[in-house]
Amino acid sequence: MTDETTARLERLSGMLKRRGILLPAFEIHGGAKGLYDFGPVGGRLRNRVNQTWLNHWLSLGNIVELSCPTVTPYAVLEASGHVGEFSDFMTMCSACEEASRADTLLESFHPNPDSLSKGDLQLLLDQSQPPCPSCNAVEWTEITAQNLMFNTTIGAGRSGRPGFLRPETAQGMFTSFPALYRHNRERLPFGAVQVGKGYRNEISPRQGMIRLREFNMAELEYFINPHETAQHDFSAWDNHVITLIADEQGEVKRTFKEAVEQGIIRHETVGFFMAKTFDFLTQVGIDAQRLRFRQHEADEMAHYASDCWDAEIHGSYGWIECVGIAHRGCYDLEAHENATGKTLRARREFDEPKVVEIDGWTTDGAKAGPAFRALAGAVKAAVENLPSSTEFPRQIALDSGDQVTVELEHVKRVQRTETISGEWYIPHVVEPAFGIDRIIWHILDHAYDEEGKDGEQYTTLRLSENVAPVDYCVFPLFEKDGMGELAKTIHAGLCLKPNIVSMYDSSGSIGRRYARADEIGVPHCITVDHQSLEDQTVTVRARDTGEQHRVHIDEL
Amino acid sequence: MTDETTARLERLSGMLKRRGILLPAFEIHGGAKGLYDFGPVGGRLRNRVNQTWLNHWLSLGNIVELSCPTVTPYAVLEASGHVGEFSDFMTMCSACEEASRADTLLESFHPNPDSLSKGDLQLLLDQSQPPCPSCNAVEWTEITAQNLMFNTTIGAGRSGRPGFLRPETAQGMFTSFPALYRHNRERLPFGAVQVGKGYRNEISPRQGMIRLREFNMAELEYFINPHETAQHDFSAWDNHVITLIADEQGEVKRTFKEAVEQGIIRHETVGFFMAKTFDFLTQVGIDAQRLRFRQHEADEMAHYASDCWDAEIHGSYGWIECVGIAHRGCYDLEAHENATGKTLRARREFDEPKVVEIDGWTTDGAKAGPAFRALAGAVKAAVENLPSSTEFPRQIALDSGDQVTVELEHVKRVQRTETISGEWYIPHVVEPAFGIDRIIWHILDHAYDEEGKDGEQYTTLRLSENVAPVDYCVFPLFEKDGMGELAKTIHAGLCLKPNIVSMYDSSGSIGRRYARADEIGVPHCITVDHQSLEDQTVTVRARDTGEQHRVHIDEL
Repeated sequence: MTDETTARLERLSGMLKRRGILLPAFEIHGGAKGLYDFGPVGGRLRNRVNQTWLNHWLSLGNIVELSCPTVTPYAVLEASGHVGEFSDFMTMCSACEEASRADTLLESFHPNPDSLSKGDLQLLLDQSQPPCPSCNAVEWTEITAQNLMFNTTIGAGRSGRPGFLRPETAQGMFTSFPALYRHNRERLPFGAVQVGKGYRNEISPRQGMIRLREFNMAELEYFINPHETAQHDFSAWDNHVITLIADEQGEVKRTFKEAVEQGIIRHETVGFFMAKTFDFLTQVGIDAQRLRFRQHEADEMAHYASDCWDAEIHGSYGWIECVGIAHRGCYDLEAHENATGKTLRARREFDEPKVVEIDGWTTDGAKAGPAFRALAGAVKAAVENLPSSTEFPRQIALDSGDQVTVELEHVKRVQRTETISGEWYIPHVVEPAFGIDRIIWHILDHAYDEEGKDGEQYTTLRLSENVAPVDYCVFPLFEKDGMGELAKTIHAGLCLKPNIVSMYDSSGSIGRRYARADEIGVPHCITVDHQSLEDQTVTVRARDTGEQHRVHIDEL
Repeated sequence: MTDETTARLERLSGMLKRRGILLPAFEIHGGAKGLYDFGPVGGRLRNRVNQTWLNHWLSLGNIVELSCPTVTPYAVLEASGHVGEFSDFMTMCSACEEASRADTLLESFHPNPDSLSKGDLQLLLDQSQPPCPSCNAVEWTEITAQNLMFNTTIGAGRSGRPGFLRPETAQGMFTSFPALYRHNRERLPFGAVQVGKGYRNEISPRQGMIRLREFNMAELEYFINPHETAQHDFSAWDNHVITLIADEQGEVKRTFKEAVEQGIIRHETVGFFMAKTFDFLTQVGIDAQRLRFRQHEADEMAHYASDCWDAEIHGSYGWIECVGIAHRGCYDLEAHENATGKTLRARREFDEPKVVEIDGWTTDGAKAGPAFRALAGAVKAAVENLPSSTEFPRQIALDSGDQVTVELEHVKRVQRTETISGEWYIPHVVEPAFGIDRIIWHILDHAYDEEGKDGEQYTTLRLSENVAPVDYCVFPLFEKDGMGELAKTIHAGLCLKPNIVSMYDSSGSIGRRYARADEIGVPHCITVDHQSLEDQTVTVRARDTGEQHRVHIDEL
């Protein structure tokens, strides 16, 4: 980071804190790393971004909103793979007991340390001996894999059961598949969205809002039939040429339609959601010139994913991943099916019924029943899974752990043709996942304008009206002659309008009040002056142009 | 609960689950007691109730929205008293290891077991020997106090620090007082609201949505100057006579204005928030006839509270506390001041400057400095706190633990008059706290109407249009001749309108589709028929009256 970038970042962070937009949480108690407050101004900014996001997806017409608990039983996150695999490599300073991420410590000794295995990290740590960022000692404990979930206990005493704070909102939506399928009258595609908290017990949080321990996230799980080709209309984006960092081609400029047609984006629905993501981000105020999409390389992608793109936004910290759009295949539903034995499938009818040759084995009840007694059902299921080429007698291991010997007299050959009209399949999932805090950070970063007039330092937060946390400021020129009362009446009237927030401010000169309003991005300021008392008109000033108009108060 | 009430509750719960409004969470994994999902229909109901609540309070014009972390460091909840006092008395069945609340077990042996001390509960448990609700054994362990917070660790390894999931949203707002005071340009009164998750690790959750382990809550912390009398206009409620269960008078019927004037409600701002709570609850669909306010008795109230009222709503579980409105005095800010040493105060100027007689002691630097050296500052502070009547020599215990003897030669008498223009005081807090899940439960309970026509079972959910999760259903009479396409176009057009959700449904007869829409409370159904293809009009049917009108599609 250059000195100028660092200095600007400090001024921006200072303003955000001073003006109550973003603040370190619990600061009077010494604070807690990786936990932030959205303050008196930031709280509504967060809410408006969340609601804009929800409306953006709900407007597609086949998407519903869910809200699931953040406290999640062990079994759910074991099934999803988070218990086993959601971890970072950690080492601890024996001198000061501060924990550090091994890859972070080794950043100046390797171009890409987070791609290294535990063994390679240990080797590099031993060779390079970096100092502890907290106390400068060089006394590192052995590297261990540290699970990043916050753990807790659900219930009390010996009947308490282990649980975690969810690392993402997605799992509650996967486990809700039966309700979603029923709600949608068993017709795919459909989606579910959820906005809420996610948790990641970072070993050593840094970079302010970029890497939090508790964060706001927003995810869409879109369930599709992999046997149908999606039809998406990309014409709305024909005029937008986008920067894509493709796995094979490197950096290219394409429209979304071209990128899908040329196979750069490998799945049409992934491409459609990238386009919808572009719309959302620019709608809430992200500068389209500082937005790009980067495709995951094959070895960077989860093994089950067939395509994955990050929306990256450029700001004070360089290019930062703020949205991930992944084709997850059938991985998630299948994982929960396997863990629970419950069916998480959709039915599809074939265009034409299929004739299927069945050639295999079943048990002969009259012989197998007495022979296997309580196990007879399990033996039947096992036998029906055997290929027609099986020879008997044969040892079979049952799921229960029992071992049985099946003789030829216990079985019968089955040969017939069957006409099948359809099948049950596991839907595939395309998932756009948004880091709301990172997006809000970049909204603020892009909106933060320090261009002063006449060489004076002057800060304007050029927020989109779609998300500005305060819609109007109302100023009485002076708090006398009834101007204060009229301004308060106008303020109260604006507050009663749905989804409008107004602030009343009577302290200091009008110039200072404009400056305060500009600093937190209020789009319009309304001033009540002497003339207002006579003709009921007020001055409305636009933040970005500085233009002023006289407007009758009935037209506000 | 009567058999009929139980049967209706079962039908209602069954419908809520079947239709995707409220569902036990993670059910495919066996579920988890006290955790619920808001499903495909319930998700938006929750969101609309939350947003309606926020708008209701923000419209007062001096209230802002905050969003603070749910993961909270130990020190914060130690300061607030939750570490020491937020607990229930628990006993465990030695046979099955299921934990139970002692007071719940003893409900049939005492009229009010939750008022009993631990010793009295133990005595009653030993005498009455209730069976375990899970396994019927009678083998109870000794009663212990069980803290109800979910605990976790912030950070990893030995540098991890203990934390909890917040039991309420309030503490983050108290610790944000400095930011709120600055934002409001140091002028009281002002308030902060927060909507979000709260957690309570219930020993044995029951009663569905009434007692959850993770719940949605919404709180307002309103900071006032106790030296000023609040001016609230109650005229908007002059026509509403409310049922109040007052501490002294018992059940009375009064308007809010009368109850404040007669001193039944002991603080005007508490009364004003009760009135605003009445408005909110009726606006989201609570039946005003099944709503009452109950005042806490002196021994039920927290020691620092000077008045506290619960809004109770009547439903399937009887009268249930859904909102608490408490005057909390200066308790919370003072507790955080004491714990942190930081100032959480507001400045007030006196109407007229006060002349104060100062008569006391200070140290004589020339003598005390050499005598006490590094402790001289602490000795000076201690001496200045002594009354004028103090005699020297005197032993003084310093905060540091040091003990010093102060001789007469170390001190000087101070006698003077000072003119003081104002003072720093700890603001008082009035707090309305809303249990959103309980309110949503009662919205559903009150809206659930099983009155069939002609003796047929027919369910209508008579939700207020302010919170109905689906605004429109669009039906093609048949999916042919272009009716399906036109219906889909209308559906897509409605979905694009801000804050409108529409569902498209083409399966089954129109009658069955109306029934399905009525069951989840859709206010308006739109049917596309043959005539629609000719004149672009559709039938709009109102849920509550069944009335149908033909409307041009441009007017939808």
